[in-house]
Amino acid sequence: MTMASETLVRVRSENGVTTITLNHPERRNSLSMAMLEALSDVFTRIAGDDETRVVVLAAAGNVFCAGHDLREMREQFGSHDFQLRLFQQCSKVMQQIVNLPKPVIARVAGVATAAGCQLVASCDLAVAEQGARFATPGVNIGLFCSTPMVALSRNVTRKHAMEMLLTGELIDAARAEQMGLINRAVEAEALDETVYRMAATIAGKSGHTLRIGKEAFYRQLEMPLDQAYDYTAGVMAGNVQANDAQEGISAFLDKRDPTWKHE
Amino acid sequence: MTMASETLVRVRSENGVTTITLNHPERRNSLSMAMLEALSDVFTRIAGDDETRVVVLAAAGNVFCAGHDLREMREQFGSHDFQLRLFQQCSKVMQQIVNLPKPVIARVAGVATAAGCQLVASCDLAVAEQGARFATPGVNIGLFCSTPMVALSRNVTRKHAMEMLLTGELIDAARAEQMGLINRAVEAEALDETVYRMAATIAGKSGHTLRIGKEAFYRQLEMPLDQAYDYTAGVMAGNVQANDAQEGISAFLDKRDPTWKHE
Amino acid sequence: MTMASETLVRVRSENGVTTITLNHPERRNSLSMAMLEALSDVFTRIAGDDETRVVVLAAAGNVFCAGHDLREMREQFGSHDFQLRLFQQCSKVMQQIVNLPKPVIARVAGVATAAGCQLVASCDLAVAEQGARFATPGVNIGLFCSTPMVALSRNVTRKHAMEMLLTGELIDAARAEQMGLINRAVEAEALDETVYRMAATIAGKSGHTLRIGKEAFYRQLEMPLDQAYDYTAGVMAGNVQANDAQEGISAFLDKRDPTWKHE
Repeated sequence: MTMASETLVRVRSENGVTTITLNHPERRNSLSMAMLEALSDVFTRIAGDDETRVVVLAAAGNVFCAGHDLREMREQFGSHDFQLRLFQQCSKVMQQIVNLPKPVIARVAGVATAAGCQLVASCDLAVAEQGARFATPGVNIGLFCSTPMVALSRNVTRKHAMEMLLTGELIDAARAEQMGLINRAVEAEALDETVYRMAATIAGKSGHTLRIGKEAFYRQLEMPLDQAYDYTAGVMAGNVQANDAQEGISAFLDKRDPTWKHE
Repeated sequence: MTMASETLVRVRSENGVTTITLNHPERRNSLSMAMLEALSDVFTRIAGDDETRVVVLAAAGNVFCAGHDLREMREQFGSHDFQLRLFQQCSKVMQQIVNLPKPVIARVAGVATAAGCQLVASCDLAVAEQGARFATPGVNIGLFCSTPMVALSRNVTRKHAMEMLLTGELIDAARAEQMGLINRAVEAEALDETVYRMAATIAGKSGHTLRIGKEAFYRQLEMPLDQAYDYTAGVMAGNVQANDAQEGISAFLDKRDPTWKHE
Repeated sequence: MTMASETLVRVRSENGVTTITLNHPERRNSLSMAMLEALSDVFTRIAGDDETRVVVLAAAGNVFCAGHDLREMREQFGSHDFQLRLFQQCSKVMQQIVNLPKPVIARVAGVATAAGCQLVASCDLAVAEQGARFATPGVNIGLFCSTPMVALSRNVTRKHAMEMLLTGELIDAARAEQMGLINRAVEAEALDETVYRMAATIAGKSGHTLRIGKEAFYRQLEMPLDQAYDYTAGVMAGNVQANDAQEGISAFLDKRDPTWKHE
């Protein structure tokens, strides 16, 4: 990571849980090209970091993320090439989250809009404080949230997604929970406790197993049923051969705690 | 449109909102071949109508739509060809709604069953009064709701869809809202206000942007994740070049209201 | 069926409703290879049984099904071949449920975990008593629930599925109902009444129609919209030619009860 990216995104690790914090609150943590490059660098680094078993995606300040940086976008109105690279870079980051071999939990305080809402939808899990708000308001400025909807429409039902996309209106955390966009809405004071208890629960599992499972989850989702079963039956049979599975099964049968090698 | 179709379906436009009203209440607004042809003509016409930015699909009388016309179907029991054309025509109309370059809101009062329920499921958004009822009761008469379930099963979860399809029982508007079949159930007195406020909100957006977004929504839904992102990144980069996007972004940054050219 | 399988799985039929009961409560009805083979035999037999119109999948004892038999799995740690055959056999049984030409209702009392939870997810409908609990806890023993998630992730939203898969924690019946994993959570005393009333409702339909509808449901789910409509329009046109459809439609129009030939 360059110094610039270290300023835009903070990274802190403890007990197998790495917290990535969007750190540009004075610009509402918007996803400028620089921010997207910084995030991409961080995800690349964490993908190969054996110490990290779970990632928490958080944000500094009272806005989670306001989406793209419209000033930057306007400066480049003349360049279709820049806009294409911008949305491709953004799409790359979102897919890095999905493809990261570690679970990612969004910790949402404040407003998450457009590509910011997409970040939440792209994470494996999401917890928000009750004051959090979500929207895909691109339609209000003539720029439909077409990349955000890829993630949104894979989280919630069609009519719920369409309502957000066509009206551009904010929904609150309770509604987001009801729709399935987030796992849980909690009191603001309980946000960190809830997120880090969930992270610790998952970090207590075998890292090897989490990697196998997360990868298989998203791959099988895109297959017809018979192929999904052919594929995952092979994944499970392979999983049984892993040290951690044999240790975990034996520990369970012997009524003791397992000791993971994470391999 | 022929005179016949004008009798079966009423069309009224105001402020960019076009209301299509099923107008055969004495036959429970059933989808006879004539009604389906009339609807198809109307959707074809509206697809090319620059004045229309949002469509409301409503029905006259106290039944929204009772599905196919069983009398007509019985008269043609001998003709497999007629039945096939009937279901193809019906499927065509449902896909015209999905492919229409303008959002469609179902305004549901009364009962929507079989292909009537499918109409609701096929719209982008749906609002119903609390007394509305929904069912896919074909199973009760030996004719499984196989085309209706295409739309239904893309709106609600599998077990919810299967419960409706296998039992044939009516569900109320509150349950339909919970399942995601409709966006909102409201008091009967508030139905028009809710529908037309939502329609006005959407009609206030750029028509060009709505068209881009709706088309991209349904296309990306059928793609695997990486293709969906490749496709929509291109859609957004193109969208930025549109007059309305550049106006919308500039207006937002300059803290003024945008003026849409709808192009 | 061999005698062994008759011990592991009980089968009882009445009024068109066949109840299959997992009958190895002393091993928590775990899905050993023998149990899976017994289940497979039963489903094969029932698929061709003209008397059965609806299946109820139940379990003896106070655990619905605890998933795979970990003792058996441990005894075979050395054999990748056994593990592969085990998960393939399990995947085969789950797909037999989906492909069975009769609706299957899970009757869930007690805990349904791992492949036991997958059984519930694989059924067309599910009713549970309020004390029932569900989990995909493989992650706790180093063996991710990769085959169970095929069924789970086709029942509930991504974030709900991921929460169960990554935390391994139990959810209660109310939460399972909310997520869509089950159709209904009822008082323990009302479980049989609810399940068998639902079964009787469905058994009162035409068996021919149920077969057409269930097959078409799962096939069209895996198609893009236009193909799904092409396919189901043909299914419906064919359905109209069936004796039961012509009887059902005529009975409805003539305001009398239909008499099914189930063909």
